[in-house]
Amino acid sequence: MSNSKIRHALDITREADFAAWYQAVVTQADMAEESGVRGCMVIKPWGWGIWERIQRVLDDEIKATGHENCYFPLFIPLSYFAKEAEHVEGFAKEMAVVTHHRLKAEDGGLVVDPEAKLEEPLVVRPTSETVIGQAMSRWVQSWRDLPLLMNQWANVVRWEMRTRMFLRTSEFLWQEGHTAHADRDDAMVETLKMLEVYRAFAEDVLAMPVIAGEKPENERFPGAVATYSIEAMMQDGKALQAGTSHYLGTGFAEAADIRYQDQEGQQTLCHTTSWGVSTRLIGGVIMTHGDDDGLRVPPRIAPHQIVILPMLRGADGDAEILDYCEKLRIGLLEQNAFREPVRVLLDSKPGKVAQKRWDWVRKGAPIIVEVGPRDMENGKVAVLRRDHLWREDGKTDFEFQVRDDFVFCAAGVLEDIQTNLFEQAKKRRDDNIRRDIKDFDGLAAHFADGVAKPGWVELAWSRPTGAALDAVVEKLKTLKLTIRNTPMQEDKPEADCFFTGDDAVETIYVARAY
Amino acid sequence: MSNSKIRHALDITREADFAAWYQAVVTQADMAEESGVRGCMVIKPWGWGIWERIQRVLDDEIKATGHENCYFPLFIPLSYFAKEAEHVEGFAKEMAVVTHHRLKAEDGGLVVDPEAKLEEPLVVRPTSETVIGQAMSRWVQSWRDLPLLMNQWANVVRWEMRTRMFLRTSEFLWQEGHTAHADRDDAMVETLKMLEVYRAFAEDVLAMPVIAGEKPENERFPGAVATYSIEAMMQDGKALQAGTSHYLGTGFAEAADIRYQDQEGQQTLCHTTSWGVSTRLIGGVIMTHGDDDGLRVPPRIAPHQIVILPMLRGADGDAEILDYCEKLRIGLLEQNAFREPVRVLLDSKPGKVAQKRWDWVRKGAPIIVEVGPRDMENGKVAVLRRDHLWREDGKTDFEFQVRDDFVFCAAGVLEDIQTNLFEQAKKRRDDNIRRDIKDFDGLAAHFADGVAKPGWVELAWSRPTGAALDAVVEKLKTLKLTIRNTPMQEDKPEADCFFTGDDAVETIYVARAY
Repeated sequence: MSNSKIRHALDITREADFAAWYQAVVTQADMAEESGVRGCMVIKPWGWGIWERIQRVLDDEIKATGHENCYFPLFIPLSYFAKEAEHVEGFAKEMAVVTHHRLKAEDGGLVVDPEAKLEEPLVVRPTSETVIGQAMSRWVQSWRDLPLLMNQWANVVRWEMRTRMFLRTSEFLWQEGHTAHADRDDAMVETLKMLEVYRAFAEDVLAMPVIAGEKPENERFPGAVATYSIEAMMQDGKALQAGTSHYLGTGFAEAADIRYQDQEGQQTLCHTTSWGVSTRLIGGVIMTHGDDDGLRVPPRIAPHQIVILPMLRGADGDAEILDYCEKLRIGLLEQNAFREPVRVLLDSKPGKVAQKRWDWVRKGAPIIVEVGPRDMENGKVAVLRRDHLWREDGKTDFEFQVRDDFVFCAAGVLEDIQTNLFEQAKKRRDDNIRRDIKDFDGLAAHFADGVAKPGWVELAWSRPTGAALDAVVEKLKTLKLTIRNTPMQEDKPEADCFFTGDDAVETIYVARAY
Repeated sequence: MSNSKIRHALDITREADFAAWYQAVVTQADMAEESGVRGCMVIKPWGWGIWERIQRVLDDEIKATGHENCYFPLFIPLSYFAKEAEHVEGFAKEMAVVTHHRLKAEDGGLVVDPEAKLEEPLVVRPTSETVIGQAMSRWVQSWRDLPLLMNQWANVVRWEMRTRMFLRTSEFLWQEGHTAHADRDDAMVETLKMLEVYRAFAEDVLAMPVIAGEKPENERFPGAVATYSIEAMMQDGKALQAGTSHYLGTGFAEAADIRYQDQEGQQTLCHTTSWGVSTRLIGGVIMTHGDDDGLRVPPRIAPHQIVILPMLRGADGDAEILDYCEKLRIGLLEQNAFREPVRVLLDSKPGKVAQKRWDWVRKGAPIIVEVGPRDMENGKVAVLRRDHLWREDGKTDFEFQVRDDFVFCAAGVLEDIQTNLFEQAKKRRDDNIRRDIKDFDGLAAHFADGVAKPGWVELAWSRPTGAALDAVVEKLKTLKLTIRNTPMQEDKPEADCFFTGDDAVETIYVARAY
């Protein structure tokens, strides 16, 4: 695929060093940067604008499925965690703890005031099951109060030793849904409904193909009875867990005393669920759609879908060009793509057009339109699609179109780009799943050092549990592999278990992962 | 104004105990509740829905004035604060400090792991000037980078000893704008522009009349050169500072080293500003528009502007009524009020209509529409405006309207309610400002114990500074009064200073305040 005639916009390629390429995209697309605060990043306007679009579209979906947004405290008293032993074990090692509530001046500097020690330490929420459980126990009285369907958009903190922008940061932003139900069936319907909301959102909005499925027992959320995920394949072949949905059984309800009076008058424990996606999705978008020229943002989440660049010379003709571009902008604003008005920016900031063009290429604006004096005279515009940047001869693939034709077609082009990004990613994902590996030696060879992009391997297994599962997990670990999930709605495979030789009961994907 | 024939929906009146009435509205309108975490509240769907509307409308304004949203870290290293001495003095006494990053199990419980002490304590942001200043110093290089116009929506924490839901909580939500400019003039234009955005937002969207003006020197934000505010009068006559905009001079720029190369090639300090409004606005809405029946939400921020209540009997006719109501809902959705589609809820949850009606009255939905079998037969609906709840005879003021007529008029009615709430609040505010008090004895008599709703007093003063101002502030404090602000764009008063007898230079408002 590489074409030596092309001079790409980044100075590093995916092939040369995928991790360094990722950092280059984050930086050169001006999405985020290190903050100077350990493990925390600054999300810059282009990165934040993508998150705002993600929030807006997903929030509509969450509301359309009957959930209401609330807001719960940032701080959780230590004692709340102590109630849910299994849950705590999963998080205890990585939480930020507030122990004091005042600073004082000392020797010309500032120190923590030892007299302002809190009676009970407060944990900065790593997730809100415990504090929301307390609220549910107040709010749920009778079967009439069920189901209780809540969501919140919030920042959470999990102390991380190794961080990577968007993928793993100590503070991150997410939505966390929390629901309470009368019985297992209703809670399972909810758990799988939200898994499907995530699948559809990832594929239709982020143009990121995913496998929706159940995580193996060893990968469950601490305290959950069942955990489901959507798993996406990045361009280096690794898996990214992009969203999870948990059926929590009655464990959290027991810890927080969430009970209801059923129709027979009995006090009954609720079954709860929780589900979340985070700013990690942005990392997934980068590693799914980015190329050697920077990011390519799927139109549905692009803060600006079309960027207009007037060629200004600081001369008399400038006002006329700006006027021509403004009419173009107004015309585009009146178009609807994906049933919303087209988002268009007329970028008339000072600077050379070529410089600005490549800045927008690196940021991944789906369509760039340039307008010079000659284009204006001919009633035309020069259109560059971010998903068709280059011609065979190594030149940028500008297409000259009549202005009004472009306006009329723009929404369709955006929809075509969205589809194209999805199809490209899906083909790459499907091409990188191996289904023909028969034994562990074959697996070891496939994942041997030096094999580029081994991707995922699909296996049949007997779903071992307990110690038998631990043995499988340990064995996979020697190849740095993990079990990603068991896809939903697949037939029982006609095969023996890859690990035990017993009858297989389901399919799993194994892969290296973020 | 009280009418003994009316049985109000709350069991406490504003007149009997304003503070208790406020708590009753927060609770009975189901907006928020205590979380069990000291100083932090749970914001419930109706309260959160109002905040979402506030965010959406104000965010559009902030973007329309050229600002971009970003996101900065929750945690700020202690050393960042040490750089800005004056700023710290104002906040040092009330910050949450993270000192450890791990818990561990001990004796069956959980404790802070002493081995996981942070090298440098992290402060949970009380505001982000310091950390954003660091970013500005990286981002601003040349005059071409200015002005730098940023905003973030975030949670912040200021340790509070006495809290009150929405008005003063340890954790609260806000937006904080932060900008850097080439010179004082440009920064002052920004400071006052955002003050005006807040004034217009408060009056046009929240229907809450405010005085926009400059705070006296003793009330400035720590480290600011000038602080401006919008001040609203609550129904008990007290003032609520509802938003602030600060011109920070070059102090923060100096501390964070925010410099730019000007057009002559000189390294020059930036002038910075910051401005914010918070969830406190919701407290202001309650105390501006609430009445003895609960909250009245201005239509522009009402999560549901119209609530339809079908009278269902669990019988055969129910499907027909629901269908009739659904057609009403669809018809209303197609209407635009305030240039947005009308927000309408068909509440068909189980429960008696009378119970549900009063729940929505307490929540303050602007229009409630009830539909029974007879209404349906006659093609009618029963309409109740939240701002005209009662008739003289003590009955609820339902008006029976032809369904299609109501649909056609609904947007206009919502706009009328919005105006009506503003006019009522403005009249009350204006009626409760005294301009005729001549000396301190008069002031003391006006604010003597037992005087109901003394409101605000407008005075002329000579704008004393330093020790002279301190003396004034102390004297006012004996009456529990504070100086609110000096209104913008008023003529110099023809009077002597109320405090010093010198020539007055401007007008101020003094009042008790939240």
